[in-house]
Amino acid sequence: MNKTQEGRFFEDFTLGEEIEHALPRTLTEGDSALYQALTGSRFAIQSSETFARRAGYDRMPLDDILVFNVVLGKSVPDISLNAVANLGYAECDFLRQVYIGETLSARSTVIGLKENSDKETGTVYVRTEGLDHRQVPILTFVRWVMIPKRDPKSKAPPAVVPDLAPSVERLTIPRHRLNRNWDAKISGSPYYWEDYTKGEKIDHRDGFTIEEAEHMLATRLYQNTTRVHFDAHLAMSTRFGKRVVYGGHVISIARALSFNGLGNGCIISAINGGSHTAPTFAGDTLYAWSEVLAAQSLENRKDIGALRLRTRVIKNQPASDFPTGGKDVVLDLDYSVLLPKRP
Amino acid sequence: MNKTQEGRFFEDFTLGEEIEHALPRTLTEGDSALYQALTGSRFAIQSSETFARRAGYDRMPLDDILVFNVVLGKSVPDISLNAVANLGYAECDFLRQVYIGETLSARSTVIGLKENSDKETGTVYVRTEGLDHRQVPILTFVRWVMIPKRDPKSKAPPAVVPDLAPSVERLTIPRHRLNRNWDAKISGSPYYWEDYTKGEKIDHRDGFTIEEAEHMLATRLYQNTTRVHFDAHLAMSTRFGKRVVYGGHVISIARALSFNGLGNGCIISAINGGSHTAPTFAGDTLYAWSEVLAAQSLENRKDIGALRLRTRVIKNQPASDFPTGGKDVVLDLDYSVLLPKRP
Amino acid sequence: MNKTQEGRFFEDFTLGEEIEHALPRTLTEGDSALYQALTGSRFAIQSSETFARRAGYDRMPLDDILVFNVVLGKSVPDISLNAVANLGYAECDFLRQVYIGETLSARSTVIGLKENSDKETGTVYVRTEGLDHRQVPILTFVRWVMIPKRDPKSKAPPAVVPDLAPSVERLTIPRHRLNRNWDAKISGSPYYWEDYTKGEKIDHRDGFTIEEAEHMLATRLYQNTTRVHFDAHLAMSTRFGKRVVYGGHVISIARALSFNGLGNGCIISAINGGSHTAPTFAGDTLYAWSEVLAAQSLENRKDIGALRLRTRVIKNQPASDFPTGGKDVVLDLDYSVLLPKRP
Repeated sequence: MNKTQEGRFFEDFTLGEEIEHALPRTLTEGDSALYQALTGSRFAIQSSETFARRAGYDRMPLDDILVFNVVLGKSVPDISLNAVANLGYAECDFLRQVYIGETLSARSTVIGLKENSDKETGTVYVRTEGLDHRQVPILTFVRWVMIPKRDPKSKAPPAVVPDLAPSVERLTIPRHRLNRNWDAKISGSPYYWEDYTKGEKIDHRDGFTIEEAEHMLATRLYQNTTRVHFDAHLAMSTRFGKRVVYGGHVISIARALSFNGLGNGCIISAINGGSHTAPTFAGDTLYAWSEVLAAQSLENRKDIGALRLRTRVIKNQPASDFPTGGKDVVLDLDYSVLLPKRP
Repeated sequence: MNKTQEGRFFEDFTLGEEIEHALPRTLTEGDSALYQALTGSRFAIQSSETFARRAGYDRMPLDDILVFNVVLGKSVPDISLNAVANLGYAECDFLRQVYIGETLSARSTVIGLKENSDKETGTVYVRTEGLDHRQVPILTFVRWVMIPKRDPKSKAPPAVVPDLAPSVERLTIPRHRLNRNWDAKISGSPYYWEDYTKGEKIDHRDGFTIEEAEHMLATRLYQNTTRVHFDAHLAMSTRFGKRVVYGGHVISIARALSFNGLGNGCIISAINGGSHTAPTFAGDTLYAWSEVLAAQSLENRKDIGALRLRTRVIKNQPASDFPTGGKDVVLDLDYSVLLPKRP
Repeated sequence: MNKTQEGRFFEDFTLGEEIEHALPRTLTEGDSALYQALTGSRFAIQSSETFARRAGYDRMPLDDILVFNVVLGKSVPDISLNAVANLGYAECDFLRQVYIGETLSARSTVIGLKENSDKETGTVYVRTEGLDHRQVPILTFVRWVMIPKRDPKSKAPPAVVPDLAPSVERLTIPRHRLNRNWDAKISGSPYYWEDYTKGEKIDHRDGFTIEEAEHMLATRLYQNTTRVHFDAHLAMSTRFGKRVVYGGHVISIARALSFNGLGNGCIISAINGGSHTAPTFAGDTLYAWSEVLAAQSLENRKDIGALRLRTRVIKNQPASDFPTGGKDVVLDLDYSVLLPKRP
C-alpha cells in the first residue's frame, strides 16, 4: 500500500461531498512578523498593539489575507494538489477578524463539477470554510480549480456549475466601532471613507520584485504543498519551465501595495471575485492599481463605510496608466474593505 | 592579543576534555514560525496548539530537528569552525521534547581523536549534550568531524576511536500518552504504527529546491557560524567554488519531506547514525525516500510504537526508484520515530 | 485628488518643522527571531532569557540596531522617500533598551536645510526620535539626506547646517548593573572592558554574502518603503542599474559581524557618526574590522565601561589588512558600546 499522498483527480470528487481538511495551524507572533517581512504589509491595526487598542480592539488582529492563505493552504492536499490551474474565487466573506494565538482549521464542500471539453480535465468548485478552535467559521469562500482526470475515458458526472453571486451582497461587518480614536495622522493615510468616490482610480505606485526564496517561504508558512511552487526540477518539464509563484502570495502583495492610497482600509470584509489572469515568476516586479467600484454606506454604522474595489496587479511595468488587461496583468481582484468614516 | 575567534585545530583537542559552549538561546514562537517557513515542516503536534493539547501535551512542542540544529550550532565555535568535513552522527537520543520559551545551551566532551594518514588532518569525536535552563540534558549525540592540523609536523596523540552503538538501543520514550484523542483525519495521515512493516519503502515524492537565502537564514537561526555556508567570496577558493548548504538544514528538509508518507511520526526519539554523503548547494532540488528498518513495540506502551527508518535524500532526481547510493545521494540517515498505535 | 503618497521634495521641508511619523509598530518575538536569522546577531543578552536575567534584566532586550532600523523606517515616508542618498548620521543616543512587546513610534524635527550647488538637490537634516507607547523617547539621532528639488528654479531658503557634535559627549548609561553574574564563558567572549586598549585593531574575520531576498525581508521588517531597495524594474533606470541594499541592513551586519572580537559589547550606547561610503548590492560579501578609538571609564560605574569604536565594512575582500578607505569600503561607523568590567 502506497502511503504517499498524491492528491485527487477529477474522478475522486463527488457533488455534495464534505471534506474535513487536516492539520490545524496555530498562528503566532512569529507568523505575523514573517508575514510583514514577506509582504511589506503595514496597515496600522495589524502592526501596532497600541493603535489597535485605541481603535477598539482587545489585541492586534492578524492580516486578513494571511488568514485567507492559511485556510486555503489547509485545503490544498485534498482539493488542488494536482490542479492545472487555480481558476477563480467568489463569495469570500471574512466573518470576523482572527487574532494571534488562534488555531485555524478548514473544511470544504464540493459544490460543482464540470468536465472540460477536452475530456482530460474538469473544473471542481468547492466552498471552503476556515474554522476557529471551536469549529466556528471565521471565513468562507468558493474557489474553482482545473483538475486533471485520472483517465480521459472515464465517464464524468452530469455538469453542475454553482450559481455564484457577483458580489458578497450582505457584508459581514465587525461588531466593534472603528473610528473611536482613529487617528489618521498615525494610521498612515489622511483619507477616510467619505474621501473616496465611485470611479476613482488609485495608482499604488510602489513596485515589488519577488525572489524565489520569498514566495517559497510565504507558501510554506501557509503549509500549502502545491509542488510547482517548490520544485524547480519538476517545474523544468512544465509549460513554464520554472517555478510559479503561489497566487495567494500575489494577493498578499497586492493588498500590501494598496496601503499607498488606501491606508485606512485596514479590514477586508469580502472578496467578491478574483482571478489569476497570468502566472507570476520569481524576478517579476509587481505593481498595482485600484478602481473604486462603489462606496457603500452601512446600515446603523456611523463609524465605518465600505469600499468595493477592483485591483489589478501588473508585472514589469508601472500601473500609472491603469491597465485593465493584456498579458502582463496577473491578478484581477474585486473585493471590499472597511474604512473609518470622518469623525 | 588577537581577540578574533578562529576556531580550534586538531592539536587543540584533548581526549576527555569537557567544553562548555557559549551562548544559550531562548527559543520562541518566532523561531518556530521561521522554522516552518524555512523547512515546510507540518507535523500536527508542532503546528497546532489544539491538536497538541488533545494529544496530551500542555503546549506545542518544538520540532526535534530544530532543537538538534540549535544544540549543534552552539558547539560549532568550539568544535567545527575549521572543520573540513562533517563526517557523521551516532547515538543521538532525544531525551524529551522541548517547548517554546525554553533556553537551551550545550556542552561537549572529546571522546575520540585520530590523526588521518595524510598527517594534515585528524578526526575529532565529541559527545554533545543539549541542556535546558537547569542544565538538565534534553538531547545527546555523538558527531565526528575532520579538523585540519595547525602543523602537519606536530605529533598526534595515540588514536582513540570510540566504540559507537549501531543504534540507540534503549530509546528514550516520552512519558505522556500519545494516542489519547489522536485523530488521524486531522493529523494529515491515516497510517498508524501497525500500518508499517519492515522492509517497506516510502517515496516522499515532493521536491524541495533550496535557495541561498533560505539555507543561510536557517543556519543563522541556529547561530551556526561555519564560514563556508555564508561567505561566497571565501567559498570561491574552496574545492566547490561556492557556498555549501549546512548539513543540518538538509536533515530538516528530509524530515519535513517525510511528512508525506509518515505524517503521524511526530516525534523523533533517536538518530542512530547519519552521514552527509555529498554536498548540497543552492539550486539543488532535494527528494527523499525512507525504508522501514524495523517496527519496534515498546514495553508497557499500548499508545505508541517506534519505527526505525533509513531515509536517503537525493538531489536533482526524484526518489521514486529508491536510490541507495551514487554521487547524488546527499544524506543517509538512520533514525527512529514514534507513532501512535491504532486506537 | 491623488491619494498616492509620493514623498517630499526639498521645497516641502521647513526649518524647525516637527513631523509626527505614522504607523507605530509593536515588536514581537517574531521580529527578534527574524532579525537574528537575517543578520546573524548573537549577543548573549539579546539571545538568551536566562543570560539576560542573570545579568540583571527582567527580560531579553531587543537588539539596538533592530530598534534603530525600525525607528528610521518610520521616518522614511516623510523624510527620505525621494532621497538620492543617505548622507550621514550623528548624535545618535540610545536612551534605554527596548523589550519585546513594546510599541515604537517616531517623530522628526527639521534642523537644517541647504541647497546644493547644482540647484537640483538639497540636503535635509533631521533629528529623529524613537518613542515608546507613552511617547517617551527611547532613541534620538540626527541624519541627513540628499533630496531632489521639485523644481530646480525654485528659490531655496537660507542655508542652515546644524552644528553636530563629533561624538555623543554624555553617553546615556543603562541603570541596571551589568556584570552581576556576567559569565564570560557563556557570553561567547573572554574579553572584558579592561582588555581593550586605545588604537587596538580587531579583524572580525567572518564574511557575510547578502542575497536580494534577505535585504528586502529585513527592510520590509522595518516597514522602510524606499523604492530602490524593492523595485528591480525601477532600479534598472538608476545609475546602479539594480537594487541597492538598505544602509541600515549593512549596519546590522557590521554589528553582528563584530561579535567575533567584541562579544561582550552587548549594548550600543551611541552612534557618534556614520556614513555609507559606497553602495552595497546583493551578491556582495561584507567583512568588517574595528579600531578602538577610546576606552572610557564611566562615573560611578564599577560594573561597566564604554568603548568608542570605529568600524569599517568592506566588500568582497577580507578586512585582515584593516583598509581605511577605497571604493570598496561601504560603511564607516563611529559608535560606542558598553562592556562589563572584569569582576
